Amino acid sequence: MTVLSINAERLLGRLRDLGQIGRDGDGRLVRLAGSDADKVGRSAFVAWTRAAGLRVAVDRIGNIFGIWKGNAHADEAPVLLGSHIDTVINAGIYDGCYGVLSGLEVIETLKASGYSPARPVAVAAFTNEEGVRYAPDMMGSLVYADGLPVEEALATVGTDGTVLGAELERIGYAGPEEPGFLKPHAYVELHIEQGPVLEREGMPVGAVENLQGISWQRVTIEGEANHAGTTPMSMRRDASHAAARVVTFLRDWARDANTPTVATVGGMSFEPNAINVIPSCATFTVDLRDPDEQRLQAEEAALAAYLKEVAAAEEVTISVERLARFEPVTFDRRIVELAEDAAHKRGLASKRMTSGAGHDAQMIARIAPSAMIFVPSISGISHNPREHTPDADLIAGANILFDVTAQLAAR
Amino acid sequence: MTVLSINAERLLGRLRDLGQIGRDGDGRLVRLAGSDADKVGRSAFVAWTRAAGLRVAVDRIGNIFGIWKGNAHADEAPVLLGSHIDTVINAGIYDGCYGVLSGLEVIETLKASGYSPARPVAVAAFTNEEGVRYAPDMMGSLVYADGLPVEEALATVGTDGTVLGAELERIGYAGPEEPGFLKPHAYVELHIEQGPVLEREGMPVGAVENLQGISWQRVTIEGEANHAGTTPMSMRRDASHAAARVVTFLRDWARDANTPTVATVGGMSFEPNAINVIPSCATFTVDLRDPDEQRLQAEEAALAAYLKEVAAAEEVTISVERLARFEPVTFDRRIVELAEDAAHKRGLASKRMTSGAGHDAQMIARIAPSAMIFVPSISGISHNPREHTPDADLIAGANILFDVTAQLAAR
Repeated sequence: MTVLSINAERLLGRLRDLGQIGRDGDGRLVRLAGSDADKVGRSAFVAWTRAAGLRVAVDRIGNIFGIWKGNAHADEAPVLLGSHIDTVINAGIYDGCYGVLSGLEVIETLKASGYSPARPVAVAAFTNEEGVRYAPDMMGSLVYADGLPVEEALATVGTDGTVLGAELERIGYAGPEEPGFLKPHAYVELHIEQGPVLEREGMPVGAVENLQGISWQRVTIEGEANHAGTTPMSMRRDASHAAARVVTFLRDWARDANTPTVATVGGMSFEPNAINVIPSCATFTVDLRDPDEQRLQAEEAALAAYLKEVAAAEEVTISVERLARFEPVTFDRRIVELAEDAAHKRGLASKRMTSGAGHDAQMIARIAPSAMIFVPSISGISHNPREHTPDADLIAGANILFDVTAQLAAR
Repeated sequence: MTVLSINAERLLGRLRDLGQIGRDGDGRLVRLAGSDADKVGRSAFVAWTRAAGLRVAVDRIGNIFGIWKGNAHADEAPVLLGSHIDTVINAGIYDGCYGVLSGLEVIETLKASGYSPARPVAVAAFTNEEGVRYAPDMMGSLVYADGLPVEEALATVGTDGTVLGAELERIGYAGPEEPGFLKPHAYVELHIEQGPVLEREGMPVGAVENLQGISWQRVTIEGEANHAGTTPMSMRRDASHAAARVVTFLRDWARDANTPTVATVGGMSFEPNAINVIPSCATFTVDLRDPDEQRLQAEEAALAAYLKEVAAAEEVTISVERLARFEPVTFDRRIVELAEDAAHKRGLASKRMTSGAGHDAQMIARIAPSAMIFVPSISGISHNPREHTPDADLIAGANILFDVTAQLAAR
């Protein structure tokens, strides 16, 4: 049997074309959910999908589906491929779009090959994955998986004061379908890694077996402002020093754990933030992630215990605000193995890995067996115009998605 | 011999009156150097000085002198008392003003007592000690001690775009005298401590034997911004962690030194300062102070060595900018002993101590034997409307200044 492959030129051309839609006056790529630029990007995707002979359906939260039934029974649950086409501000062209356009490409190639699926195959572009204009992120897939009532999501007020539901109406993407109308047999999301692991290890394919749980907290440490020259070290209640102890604790704890645990203090501010005043207050963010829920809870507990210790030792008051919490997601082992097998058969090395970022797949995993396939991100850069994946890796990833889809749709 | 004492009511009344001059619309005390409010404050001091029968002289940088010659030889070097009457924004009423008004009070009391000095006694109000509107601080005394050319000082452009020289002309305090025209025999500055030591130790009087050297640096640590979820701990070049290590190092080093060494990290900022991005850059200030120059240099060297260690260990780039550097000042031992003796004779406990803040005395020490006398600051608070010293302590301090002045002017 000859090995079928996707049409690389068509896929790469559409990626480039979609990447030109939504450029602002400074040439930055900005296609925020529900915006005019989003409308133009959606319309391009819909046009390609229609031209490929797929049925287009849009649900009430604006998720777009391109459905190919083939000769399959109409009531069979479809294999769903997908991701998102909304972007951050000053984005790269790959994040999300690569998964959506590859899904379409896989279906077109299957269709053209004369393949006869046992079940429909569909591609989805989920609304507002980035969450830049409307919170939370991954909103379209969350609503689709019944994790957020559609009315509540549509009423979301954006950073610019607009209401998502009204914006979807305005741009013509408030569809008639009820979110969840198409219950997938399986869901596969192809995505750039957005991290450095595959490139550094020289691996072209990542078979993503799970997705980290996330714990976001804001820690506020209150000490006492005092003169930096006249206050002896022993009389200080220094918020800066207490904060620094927590930062080094978190890093040492995560590093010494010798697990996939990651801990980041990305945001920090001091008050009054003057060179000659001992800070009265230090506020910082904590981002803890782990693919194992028990380890994530242990991490949170270790932080809480250390904060108590620091509060007592430094005579400071520490308060913690929980900003976000998602449990880890374990992807479907069978789909992960299909991705590994496909890579192996195409002579490509693959690596089982964890997704450190959030993706629509974590939401769809609530309602269907799901997994992801990653391709390398040069220098791990994403959410940035320098986001890049070499063409060969993009093509290889789409071919793996093709193979996995053919397997899943055959039964 | 009866013990003479200053007129407490007069001193406290003038402190309160001067403290009402320069209130803004919100009731905040703001008498920035060269401002209209400074003019009104200066005029009140000049009026009280003239009323006391002293000769008023103003030099080119606006320093005001009230001179009492008594029967002394005109060519004898005077005993100079003084401080400043400019303030920070939202100031307390004691910082600086207490020393100037006490100097005037001491001279008035000496004069009224029939005391016949062997040399003139004068009181000075130095221009722009606070340095809020025009940098550097302690400018008037620095110029007076020949540490900064007067033309250069007068050309200083303020934070509001004004030029100091023009402002002094405008408010009528660009005087004719050449800075340094009156070379002191000795200089004594009475001041609130602006720190917590005297209050916590229950000491009414501080005999200030030296003033800390100050080393101000800005440290910039450059790592690599990366996704907080997808970047393993071992692949991070995390500026936040490197910065936190330096903060804890400085504090531990200063505390373990068991010396008067103090180290403060008062200012900190991260870039891009986002919860889910490993910081690419951390910038922070370092304020090191020590009354011993060799120890201060050892502190600076220890920091520099540690920065090298951190740069290598964390794979970050560290650069250091020197913002300010003043060597420690050792005050005149004889004057310090006179202050201790005076306190003892009045039945007041005293403590030899170090000034942690900068004062005009450190500049005048360049041209004359100098020392300072401190009184307690409640909770160590200064540069704040809550700045407070109990009346009894204010009166005691002024009486010590009286005794020291009488001793110094007798020979």
